[in-house]
Amino acid sequence: MKNKIYKNEVLDIIRAAISEDLGGYGDITSKYLISSDDKISSYVICKEKEGAVLSGLDIACYIMEEIDASLEFKKLKHDGQKLNCKDRICTINGPALSIIKAERTCLNFIQHMSGIATITNKFSTIASRYNVKIADTRKTKPLLRKLEKYAVLCGGGYNHRFGLFDGVLIKDNHITAAGGVKKAVNKVRDKIPHSLKIEVEVKNLSELKGAMSCKVDIIMLDNMDPKQAKEAAAIVKREMGSSCLVEISGNVNLNNLEDYCKTGIDLISVGYITHSAPAVDFSLEFVSS
Amino acid sequence: MKNKIYKNEVLDIIRAAISEDLGGYGDITSKYLISSDDKISSYVICKEKEGAVLSGLDIACYIMEEIDASLEFKKLKHDGQKLNCKDRICTINGPALSIIKAERTCLNFIQHMSGIATITNKFSTIASRYNVKIADTRKTKPLLRKLEKYAVLCGGGYNHRFGLFDGVLIKDNHITAAGGVKKAVNKVRDKIPHSLKIEVEVKNLSELKGAMSCKVDIIMLDNMDPKQAKEAAAIVKREMGSSCLVEISGNVNLNNLEDYCKTGIDLISVGYITHSAPAVDFSLEFVSS
Amino acid sequence: MKNKIYKNEVLDIIRAAISEDLGGYGDITSKYLISSDDKISSYVICKEKEGAVLSGLDIACYIMEEIDASLEFKKLKHDGQKLNCKDRICTINGPALSIIKAERTCLNFIQHMSGIATITNKFSTIASRYNVKIADTRKTKPLLRKLEKYAVLCGGGYNHRFGLFDGVLIKDNHITAAGGVKKAVNKVRDKIPHSLKIEVEVKNLSELKGAMSCKVDIIMLDNMDPKQAKEAAAIVKREMGSSCLVEISGNVNLNNLEDYCKTGIDLISVGYITHSAPAVDFSLEFVSS
Amino acid sequence: MKNKIYKNEVLDIIRAAISEDLGGYGDITSKYLISSDDKISSYVICKEKEGAVLSGLDIACYIMEEIDASLEFKKLKHDGQKLNCKDRICTINGPALSIIKAERTCLNFIQHMSGIATITNKFSTIASRYNVKIADTRKTKPLLRKLEKYAVLCGGGYNHRFGLFDGVLIKDNHITAAGGVKKAVNKVRDKIPHSLKIEVEVKNLSELKGAMSCKVDIIMLDNMDPKQAKEAAAIVKREMGSSCLVEISGNVNLNNLEDYCKTGIDLISVGYITHSAPAVDFSLEFVSS
Amino acid sequence: MKNKIYKNEVLDIIRAAISEDLGGYGDITSKYLISSDDKISSYVICKEKEGAVLSGLDIACYIMEEIDASLEFKKLKHDGQKLNCKDRICTINGPALSIIKAERTCLNFIQHMSGIATITNKFSTIASRYNVKIADTRKTKPLLRKLEKYAVLCGGGYNHRFGLFDGVLIKDNHITAAGGVKKAVNKVRDKIPHSLKIEVEVKNLSELKGAMSCKVDIIMLDNMDPKQAKEAAAIVKREMGSSCLVEISGNVNLNNLEDYCKTGIDLISVGYITHSAPAVDFSLEFVSS
Amino acid sequence: MKNKIYKNEVLDIIRAAISEDLGGYGDITSKYLISSDDKISSYVICKEKEGAVLSGLDIACYIMEEIDASLEFKKLKHDGQKLNCKDRICTINGPALSIIKAERTCLNFIQHMSGIATITNKFSTIASRYNVKIADTRKTKPLLRKLEKYAVLCGGGYNHRFGLFDGVLIKDNHITAAGGVKKAVNKVRDKIPHSLKIEVEVKNLSELKGAMSCKVDIIMLDNMDPKQAKEAAAIVKREMGSSCLVEISGNVNLNNLEDYCKTGIDLISVGYITHSAPAVDFSLEFVSS
Repeated sequence: MKNKIYKNEVLDIIRAAISEDLGGYGDITSKYLISSDDKISSYVICKEKEGAVLSGLDIACYIMEEIDASLEFKKLKHDGQKLNCKDRICTINGPALSIIKAERTCLNFIQHMSGIATITNKFSTIASRYNVKIADTRKTKPLLRKLEKYAVLCGGGYNHRFGLFDGVLIKDNHITAAGGVKKAVNKVRDKIPHSLKIEVEVKNLSELKGAMSCKVDIIMLDNMDPKQAKEAAAIVKREMGSSCLVEISGNVNLNNLEDYCKTGIDLISVGYITHSAPAVDFSLEFVSS
Repeated sequence: MKNKIYKNEVLDIIRAAISEDLGGYGDITSKYLISSDDKISSYVICKEKEGAVLSGLDIACYIMEEIDASLEFKKLKHDGQKLNCKDRICTINGPALSIIKAERTCLNFIQHMSGIATITNKFSTIASRYNVKIADTRKTKPLLRKLEKYAVLCGGGYNHRFGLFDGVLIKDNHITAAGGVKKAVNKVRDKIPHSLKIEVEVKNLSELKGAMSCKVDIIMLDNMDPKQAKEAAAIVKREMGSSCLVEISGNVNLNNLEDYCKTGIDLISVGYITHSAPAVDFSLEFVSS
Repeated sequence: MKNKIYKNEVLDIIRAAISEDLGGYGDITSKYLISSDDKISSYVICKEKEGAVLSGLDIACYIMEEIDASLEFKKLKHDGQKLNCKDRICTINGPALSIIKAERTCLNFIQHMSGIATITNKFSTIASRYNVKIADTRKTKPLLRKLEKYAVLCGGGYNHRFGLFDGVLIKDNHITAAGGVKKAVNKVRDKIPHSLKIEVEVKNLSELKGAMSCKVDIIMLDNMDPKQAKEAAAIVKREMGSSCLVEISGNVNLNNLEDYCKTGIDLISVGYITHSAPAVDFSLEFVSS
Repeated sequence: MKNKIYKNEVLDIIRAAISEDLGGYGDITSKYLISSDDKISSYVICKEKEGAVLSGLDIACYIMEEIDASLEFKKLKHDGQKLNCKDRICTINGPALSIIKAERTCLNFIQHMSGIATITNKFSTIASRYNVKIADTRKTKPLLRKLEKYAVLCGGGYNHRFGLFDGVLIKDNHITAAGGVKKAVNKVRDKIPHSLKIEVEVKNLSELKGAMSCKVDIIMLDNMDPKQAKEAAAIVKREMGSSCLVEISGNVNLNNLEDYCKTGIDLISVGYITHSAPAVDFSLEFVSS
Repeated sequence: MKNKIYKNEVLDIIRAAISEDLGGYGDITSKYLISSDDKISSYVICKEKEGAVLSGLDIACYIMEEIDASLEFKKLKHDGQKLNCKDRICTINGPALSIIKAERTCLNFIQHMSGIATITNKFSTIASRYNVKIADTRKTKPLLRKLEKYAVLCGGGYNHRFGLFDGVLIKDNHITAAGGVKKAVNKVRDKIPHSLKIEVEVKNLSELKGAMSCKVDIIMLDNMDPKQAKEAAAIVKREMGSSCLVEISGNVNLNNLEDYCKTGIDLISVGYITHSAPAVDFSLEFVSS
Repeated sequence: MKNKIYKNEVLDIIRAAISEDLGGYGDITSKYLISSDDKISSYVICKEKEGAVLSGLDIACYIMEEIDASLEFKKLKHDGQKLNCKDRICTINGPALSIIKAERTCLNFIQHMSGIATITNKFSTIASRYNVKIADTRKTKPLLRKLEKYAVLCGGGYNHRFGLFDGVLIKDNHITAAGGVKKAVNKVRDKIPHSLKIEVEVKNLSELKGAMSCKVDIIMLDNMDPKQAKEAAAIVKREMGSSCLVEISGNVNLNNLEDYCKTGIDLISVGYITHSAPAVDFSLEFVSS
């Protein structure tokens, strides 16, 4: 399935973003210099050297449309596609004044979302060789989680729970409060929507065995090194088979990723891909006439 | 003056961020495990090795307050302050359930804003030795520009125009549309709020002279190398003195920063500090009883 | 754990509700007749003959607070509690003008949410005798799903997925589009957040076996009669044990509920409890002085 | 005049409703199984046995449009029309993915609003034989009053005041606060917009006479039985003629409705039609190809 | 009863107004010059020569509170009160930075609303000598109708309908569309909420008689001169007594007001008091220490 | 360049304005009298005797579109154009019901914005003869500043800073807090976005010299009479040439405007043009068939 964002899903966000850049006076430079009737042809190109992965092009299209419905936006690439340097990702034709007003807002979405897609893709390209999935976390930029998690998908990654409301993750404090892992898991199992799995975070093998005894659906190994992770994964797979997923979280980076991938775990969740992804460089250019 | 965010300035943002994480069901793990009456003591620590710069602590305070007015939040550091690893930046005491609900949302603001403050500080520490200012750009994350530009101040940087509405920057396309730099500058000067300066972007010495002949207030050197920048700056300072600022933009990074600082320019605007700042690692810990 | 709504979770809703009733002119009768200084004591009583279950009291408290922070609201009951006729659920003391302005808006929340809690309780009281859970559906009133699903919890019911985004339910059309149940389940399993279970809707035993062969987590029996349901549940439990839940949906009412409860299924999801629950009668009374 | 809702009147409501069902991830089942290009034909049918009255079809149309402007929506019935079981009320053709995403949100509006229209119609069909009007009350679901009062019109009922701001209803507490019915009526008459009538609630004949002596426009008989109501109506009509309307409120249901209709009153306001109307069953079906 | 605005009635408006003045950077002058800890005493005075009427003081209080909850706001006057030049209407003590940020936003509300109250008071002082009421119209500033109509009350005027939804006014086009005044009135009478009166606009005596024959509640004389108005009022009062109000609208100003007041009509609606009221001059002063 | 408002710039405002007039019930008179199918031709005319200046026509167009996309709106004039009495500014053809619903909201924008444009034009016509600019202030109606400042442009005036965030104006209190004008200017110069000029308010020649010594960009003469202003302007121009603008503020009206224009200053900022502009009279008329 193609990655796609529908307009109604992002309308509030793009309106807020446009208004953030235009304020009360609008584009105070252009409006006195460029007639609202002047037409021009333009395109957006990728200026990144290494192969970037595109994300956010639908949004750029909606922004142009929102600012001026007469603009013609044509996609040359689609979200999730790998780009070469100088690749043109779209053309926009119409009033120059409108294009200039929309330019930075469009690029800010694309550069940020493609940044996440690109770094995710670096992780997932390696991990997929080992049948390991790269998942995102809740360590996202406020107000942009929806878009950042979409960008992770574009990069070949997988989504973890969206928020506190659609996935259960039992940690130390929960276990203490409930009076032990068994009580915690049972209480939660009895109460949550039955469409949700139960995940428990463990720090060592003793905690691991406690969690397994409750037949949890997912075990998260917290900050283990590859050796510990391998031992833990082996125990889970031996005793619970594929009915229990093993996820690792913490300290995984592009340098040690392969070591973790070899441990037999199922997933690695990586905060870095959303909280620290560097932007990908894009630029809007005018076709000189 | 201390850096400070007022609650009314960020109320909409923090409400949207809280609701992004809690959705319709709330914290589905904790609400079945932790009584709303259980009290606990907690604190937030910095886990970054190198000296990070704090930004966003006021916001964390407002988030806690919004989720549960009975929480006691005490600041141990303030925005703009340098941190050592393991520094505690605040304590939060009160219902454990409320603290856990607010935890990730608080940390997401602090880690992102401190990331920007920290990288800005690296640039500005070097630049300030040469009396050069580091300024931000409009290359920010959508909906978060207000916060990101505040974080730049915390890091010792300076703000450029907020959007298209509060600063004039005349570029190629404007000059073409107006029929020459002189016409462009004059039209704009006649029309814009008189509280705004006029900045013109130039790519070479010929354009530079055109701009100078219009007595513009600021000249932006676009993507020049240090040698070109030095020549350009010298011309401006010789002919216009301090009445015209020289700004450079494009391709400046921590490696070549000093070379640019030595050119005699006044400011360097750096997109990197807002569009690609890696997050700073913070963690909320419970005081074990 | 006690059922509890936090103010920040419902602030937008209560503001919209208050403004719906007060419009631009406010309470046009009272403001010309009652001084804003007149104080009074009042309480809310339940006027329902049969044992109602309370839901929405926290919201009433927040509405009073929003309209006039000087009002004193004291809860005498709590959400989820069974009520007798004439039970007082709270007292409100303070300016009469403020209480009258808030009265109907408060009661509209309580009467509606308690209506859902009460009918849910009738279903779940019966079902719990058979260890069967009563779950809600997405057949809720627009804009009020959050509150209606909370009311279901108050009544002793369970929540199904909140929306299309936090639970997977594969139906006929999905299977057709994917080219068979196996393809559908595998595609979804590969892509969705790993914290979610997979549920498949089946209409007969042949579809049931298809779903079982994919090791789905939940099977929904669609509109089966008790006899068919019993046969289906037996097959699932025999072949998959407790690793696969059996849910029934459609045509269950208070008359045939026990028949369905005896079939060995795990859950019954009932649209009626949210889309057709009759209101419970509450009234606000003034203490005559 | 045909009952009709304009899109701008409900835009905020339908956007909130869509977002309630789709959240941050969208339709997590369908988006991995159904291509955004697949087209399909579908229709909505009424599954209610007894003659339901349609309300909300315009809204369904706007929801489909909002989710995907390429969908073709064709109305086969209109709001206010009586339906037979299996009647098709509209067809929707276009991308299957979009139709499935919109399905439940559309049906939730139609089933709820038609529920109100249908029960209102039962009351008003009987009452109209006696030239008595059935009016709604302010006992509505929060945030949906606008739609519920529209549905009452679709069912042949009449609207009472929308909120506290557009109609005057003087009750006990007002009279006490003002120091007697005469003072209350005079104060209000002097102050309110002159476009509004004045209604006074009375509990017995003594209060009735007090209200009549003030020449009020409407008298509301509160919780009187049919015999008392008849006596009261006779007095009003005899002494004030048609210049004063008589309304009854409280305890009226389909069993005793005719008794009340025979009393000579003008209107009956019924909370039940909005606070307790059971939903009407509709279903969206795909045309198999 | 005292004129009073509750905070929840204006919260959205004051938040939008504050954000309009502070934007993303806040008070860019003060924040670098005034420490957030500096405290000061200040007051607001009226600088108008002629007796102004105060309106909007509650709002100023809420704005100060919203910007900084630590500010102490003390009212010295109240809305609706007549002011002399140099009268102090309130004191505000606390952080100077906060007071300066709030100053202009507060004054903009007070100067505008007091402007309306003051001009209304001029009209109503004259009219009240003749027992004629001055009413407002729907000719208000967009988004501020609620406040402007409140200011009319402060000035001693009366409110007409708030919008199209809470009052019936039948004009030429309605009559033509309905096929005559009788049909129009009857159709409307049958349909509208029974709490509303029916008003008909007439241009001459012939239309007047048509309206009277339908027993309408209010007759609006459209753009008649005093002589015509007198004749019309006499007819209405003779034939319908006090059961029908007579309103005049159009061309009434302070010069001809008394002429109109002597015609025997009940009300004069004046667009000028809301659409063209000049501001009243207020100023915030610091107490020098 | 033509004055033009883009739809996305005012969408929130026009939606709020429409909803302010239509409320929950809509146009309660028209919807029962005029079929939604009836078509009509209409136009808007200017009824002002003296030459008014148009502003707000784009907004009227968007309102019509928002209420009914089938309406055909044709502009006959454009914003900023001078009008004669009886000039038709646009035609609107389509459903009569939709036109009537939109009428008052459209006219309220046009009459208010044209009022500002017209009075501004009176000032600027005189001032322009002396090469003096008329600028607006922050003394605007809350929530409408964007539109009012646009209207000032339409009238030939100039915009001052939009809010506290996009222009620096150092006043008494700032200077006191900073410990002298020099410290104040230097602190601010070091911190603010370098795209902004610095303006200092002075009350007498001594303060003027202090400000000049800091090389500020703009000097605001506060409440000086023409003689003082002339002296001050002469000093500034003699010592600082055109590098420092001189602005006067306070007490300028149409009577003394020319006196001020002759003083050699550059700009006059006038609160009156936004806070007290009387409305211009427009009317929507139907073409009789």
